[in-house]
Amino acid sequence: MSVVYGRVALIGLGLIASSMAWGMRRAGLAEEIVGTARSAQTRETAREIGLCDRVVDTAAEAVKDADLVVLAVPVGVMGAVAEEIGPHLKQGATVSDVGSVKRAVIAAVGPHIPDGVNFIPAHPLAGTEHSGPRSGFAELFDNRFCLLVPAENSDRQAVDRLRAYWEGLGANVEEMDADHHDLVLAVTSHAPHLIAYTMVGVADDLRRVTDSEVIKYSAAGFRDFTRIAASDPTMWRDVFLTNKDATLEILGRFTEELFALQRAIRTGDGDMLFDYFTRTRAIRRSIIDAGQDTDAPDFGRSKVHP
Amino acid sequence: MSVVYGRVALIGLGLIASSMAWGMRRAGLAEEIVGTARSAQTRETAREIGLCDRVVDTAAEAVKDADLVVLAVPVGVMGAVAEEIGPHLKQGATVSDVGSVKRAVIAAVGPHIPDGVNFIPAHPLAGTEHSGPRSGFAELFDNRFCLLVPAENSDRQAVDRLRAYWEGLGANVEEMDADHHDLVLAVTSHAPHLIAYTMVGVADDLRRVTDSEVIKYSAAGFRDFTRIAASDPTMWRDVFLTNKDATLEILGRFTEELFALQRAIRTGDGDMLFDYFTRTRAIRRSIIDAGQDTDAPDFGRSKVHP
Repeated sequence: MSVVYGRVALIGLGLIASSMAWGMRRAGLAEEIVGTARSAQTRETAREIGLCDRVVDTAAEAVKDADLVVLAVPVGVMGAVAEEIGPHLKQGATVSDVGSVKRAVIAAVGPHIPDGVNFIPAHPLAGTEHSGPRSGFAELFDNRFCLLVPAENSDRQAVDRLRAYWEGLGANVEEMDADHHDLVLAVTSHAPHLIAYTMVGVADDLRRVTDSEVIKYSAAGFRDFTRIAASDPTMWRDVFLTNKDATLEILGRFTEELFALQRAIRTGDGDMLFDYFTRTRAIRRSIIDAGQDTDAPDFGRSKVHP
Repeated sequence: MSVVYGRVALIGLGLIASSMAWGMRRAGLAEEIVGTARSAQTRETAREIGLCDRVVDTAAEAVKDADLVVLAVPVGVMGAVAEEIGPHLKQGATVSDVGSVKRAVIAAVGPHIPDGVNFIPAHPLAGTEHSGPRSGFAELFDNRFCLLVPAENSDRQAVDRLRAYWEGLGANVEEMDADHHDLVLAVTSHAPHLIAYTMVGVADDLRRVTDSEVIKYSAAGFRDFTRIAASDPTMWRDVFLTNKDATLEILGRFTEELFALQRAIRTGDGDMLFDYFTRTRAIRRSIIDAGQDTDAPDFGRSKVHP
């Protein structure tokens, strides 16, 4: 692997950015990694663990002379960060992000990107329920998808370079338009997360079943929901607020379908339930066949940092 | 470990029974394991892999002289199996089961148990998404809970013996009454399963996002739902039909809560979302502290048979 960008600036040093830092080092993708975070404590931790070549105090300082700038902050603050860095970006640089929604990020960030700078939104589909600068590991993106969302007038060379960078981090790269991205993610990620949060909240609220019972007996299915529902609250608040339309559309479909299954339970329609469950089982098989999970019990996350 | 029951009869040879067979051998809990299954192919497989000391063709034959009889068939057919074996049970024997609901099993099986035989329902909280006689492994119950649901007039010695047996299989044993069991499981297992089935069904139905996209991008949260939604269709149909009231009650609460979160998304109430997600994250931490999952990426299932 060889250097793709001379200097890379990471704005925000959470799970994704810290995994990118370790991944860049593993593959030698950058000559210099500069990082910054809003919290002094995060910057201190990053220095302590040697996450970047340099950790600086402001985003404006971090982007100076950077060839690639990655916005790795919650979606809700990307606009403000873009406004801060806009005047300090190098001509010919590429600005990208790792946000879970794309339409809202483009609307918030786009206007602050000066002429002569390439803005190419991206979204790596990888994560764990952990957060912060210590949670990163180089293997996070291995064999996971990274979706690039270039605009129609994006510079092709700049897009290909960002693609090479993400491939260097181990990801399979695909391109998609912003609206479709937001709908696909509403189905595969945003709605499932909201549903898991809801179920865990219900269990916590129910007074006739104690919290300690819920916790003790969680192995029976509930446990997987709690992992999903343990993801970073700030990030997820912003996801739902900024991918409102697609998420609400999918939740509407979900409720409709849930009511149909509830009705089948109430009326004792065993055939309907059996057929439904047989169909969903086949989907699981397809996912294993597609290599996005394994039959093994580690949920395909065998490369997670110890 | 020493022998707890002389002869154990397993009626049904799926994931749970086959794991019990391997577990009994690991710990030397039985002198002889006799198994049977309704399907000739299942019996053939069981013979092929040496699952039991003897595999016989009928349940009536299997229970002959057995000290412990375990009903490990779908909840919907337990009544019929109990009726078949009732006249062949040995005086002093214990009949138990491994069904995921308890009130309906007691109603269906209880009337067929003759005087002088102990009926002590049980429910091991363990499983994988796999099924059939080849899916079992000795470690399935290690450090998992097994709930015993004795009647008020159950023979205390017989209950303690069944407890020793499940402890020998590696489980932590607790006692609970049937109604409470069914409510606890509706929260920790039945409702989460139905919700996962529903979400996977919605994704499959949505025409603007292709199945192949859903499958490719499933790592983003959806993947964990598909594992839950891949569980045995017959078993789950019977669970929902026989634990109807508690499941519908929890789903009602779930819908109410989901609507409140949808409303927060629609109105842009970020504080409500943030507080909710912070609370659910704390529950995850409690589960890890309780030893029912680990921070490691294998979902605490590290002992699964290769």
